[in-house]
Amino acid sequence: MKMTIINMDNMAGSHLDEKVIASMEPYFSFHYGNPSSSHDLGIATGKALNEAREKVAGLISADADDIIFTSSATESNNLALKGLAMAGRKKGNHIVTSATEHFSILNPLKTLQKEGFTVTILPVDNYGLIDPIALDKAINDHTILVSIQTANPEIGTIQTIDELAAIAIERGVPFHTDATAAAGWMPIDVKKTKISLLTLAGDQLNGPRGSAALYVKAGHRLQPLLEGGIQERGLRSGTENVPAIVGFGEAAHLAQQSIHERVKKMASVRDNLKESFFSEIPYLHINGHPEKRLPNNLNISVQFVEGEALLMRLNMAGIYVSSGSSCTSQALKASHVLTAIGVPPELAQGSLLFTLGVGNSLEEVPYVTAELSKAAELLRNMSPLYQQFKKGE
Amino acid sequence: MKMTIINMDNMAGSHLDEKVIASMEPYFSFHYGNPSSSHDLGIATGKALNEAREKVAGLISADADDIIFTSSATESNNLALKGLAMAGRKKGNHIVTSATEHFSILNPLKTLQKEGFTVTILPVDNYGLIDPIALDKAINDHTILVSIQTANPEIGTIQTIDELAAIAIERGVPFHTDATAAAGWMPIDVKKTKISLLTLAGDQLNGPRGSAALYVKAGHRLQPLLEGGIQERGLRSGTENVPAIVGFGEAAHLAQQSIHERVKKMASVRDNLKESFFSEIPYLHINGHPEKRLPNNLNISVQFVEGEALLMRLNMAGIYVSSGSSCTSQALKASHVLTAIGVPPELAQGSLLFTLGVGNSLEEVPYVTAELSKAAELLRNMSPLYQQFKKGE
Repeated sequence: MKMTIINMDNMAGSHLDEKVIASMEPYFSFHYGNPSSSHDLGIATGKALNEAREKVAGLISADADDIIFTSSATESNNLALKGLAMAGRKKGNHIVTSATEHFSILNPLKTLQKEGFTVTILPVDNYGLIDPIALDKAINDHTILVSIQTANPEIGTIQTIDELAAIAIERGVPFHTDATAAAGWMPIDVKKTKISLLTLAGDQLNGPRGSAALYVKAGHRLQPLLEGGIQERGLRSGTENVPAIVGFGEAAHLAQQSIHERVKKMASVRDNLKESFFSEIPYLHINGHPEKRLPNNLNISVQFVEGEALLMRLNMAGIYVSSGSSCTSQALKASHVLTAIGVPPELAQGSLLFTLGVGNSLEEVPYVTAELSKAAELLRNMSPLYQQFKKGE
Repeated sequence: MKMTIINMDNMAGSHLDEKVIASMEPYFSFHYGNPSSSHDLGIATGKALNEAREKVAGLISADADDIIFTSSATESNNLALKGLAMAGRKKGNHIVTSATEHFSILNPLKTLQKEGFTVTILPVDNYGLIDPIALDKAINDHTILVSIQTANPEIGTIQTIDELAAIAIERGVPFHTDATAAAGWMPIDVKKTKISLLTLAGDQLNGPRGSAALYVKAGHRLQPLLEGGIQERGLRSGTENVPAIVGFGEAAHLAQQSIHERVKKMASVRDNLKESFFSEIPYLHINGHPEKRLPNNLNISVQFVEGEALLMRLNMAGIYVSSGSSCTSQALKASHVLTAIGVPPELAQGSLLFTLGVGNSLEEVPYVTAELSKAAELLRNMSPLYQQFKKGE
């Protein structure tokens, strides 16, 4: 018996592209040198490192010299925030961010607050969008950094990042954006948008775990978090993880080549899935912006039903989805993102996040719809709130 | 024509064990889930993560719960020092270390000094050993941390770590040891020695790049460097690099199983190499302790000859060695380790570091000796200092 396996939780984890695996293999068993070594083993890996840097830079139209390799988007975000704040302490102590950022932005900022920094957290509207006027008002003479995500990983909402970056830069304030969920799924050009720092990760591009980068535009000073052998221009010490970096380079290259085709395909599957859900499943709500969202993202709430219970039922049917941010889903708290866009707690608890990947197809839509419909009906009938609601009708 | 390739720079980079590669493969293409996910993909990787934690803990006789996975030994060292110092600020501001530590210890301490901490750097003797009485004297009422390496990566000298740890612990001061070069090459038992924190890395055990750990004995509070989704007990956020961690677990398991046999084999090759060098090559000096050193380590200086020039000649012959710490070898400065043990600058410039790995064998000794002898003679004859010395004879 062949079990159906449909992964619609690609943000949490996606298979590596076969070409990415093939690109990494020689660096495990043959080209295992250290880029800092002066002999041939080192020279070979040093060359591979430079080539990967060019490819990752290419995805966001950056100069290769401005790419700092790190081990995760979390590390890139921490380096951007703490690095810039600690290096810029003498200039000011105020940082601006938004309510729907990832915890690898919000938690470092809490630590910086303990170190004497003040943080303005901008609210978002019901679609998750930030008001550019509010950003302009929030910036003051002590502001040393604005950090706003390119697109939200949970609800997919895409910010007007060009406009927001321009506001900060015009006021002379460095602008960081967490583009982890966005890179590879929408065009990003750091030169056109004048972004100062940008976070991206390989494992969101069918690349390897442990591969990520921080783009740091020339001229920005950061205090490193990891100090030692002065790798990565001194901003991130530690022997470079060459196999992961090579795989990241390949993944970035493939993403850049196929971006239009992938975006079109994913949006088509996503839209089909959405329409299919709405035609089959009652008491359904959509979370996030109806249009300005990542093409691979669908976030829904099913009234009267807990998201975690739905997730478990779908899991039994071989369908993998998330009940929110994979980083905190085990905590079972209502998502801070859904709370910020005004989703009432009972609906936020019923949220289900579908993040599509290149492995998904239109053929999967009917099965996923049927299983979700079945699970929702079963769980709804067990819900005291639903029984009460029915009585009141 | 088959070219001879002999890697005797295994500290900088070593091939991955085939069993390690095999252990990682399923986690690239099949078990690619996120351990934080509640569905089957997440549960499978969560289980793999726990198993790897047990295996890594086993190598140093630790409890699995006390292992925090990081991306490199550099990260582990930074987390240990900055994490403990920042969390312990209210208790005191004094840290003790030694002059021959790795730069991932010395450089973070420089940053902590700028933050108001004071640092005592203990000297070492001509073999690289620390005087336990000097450590006892250095500890005062404000001391919150002692960090001393288990064995030096460059000269191989093994400290009397049990005695040093006991002195700190008796005075109520947490003791961290950087065991990156030592783990897998000598027995380590954190329970017997009462070590508080310990750094180790997978890529020193024929395991993957990007895999490392910090052992943190229960009861020690650290301020995390990387904050976000609260992975690794909140001490190191970021999606776990499961393939690398699984490979690290396998490498630690293999190292533990084969430690006696490997140590015996490597010491035999190393001793043979040393004797062969001394019988064939004049003006040779050995750096570090004659006996208390890692079994895979040989550090020599050839008078009148630059180490970097020797390295280049050996490289042409397919023999890979290092002229010192791979992390800084491109800087061409005299090693701070050799300077600390009193090697005069002209000999320190001529140092050559051989770090053996499981791939090396006795059969390689004659070829390496012949090539080194040839290169040393050629370069010596070109040296003005040598000509002067000959005239004076």
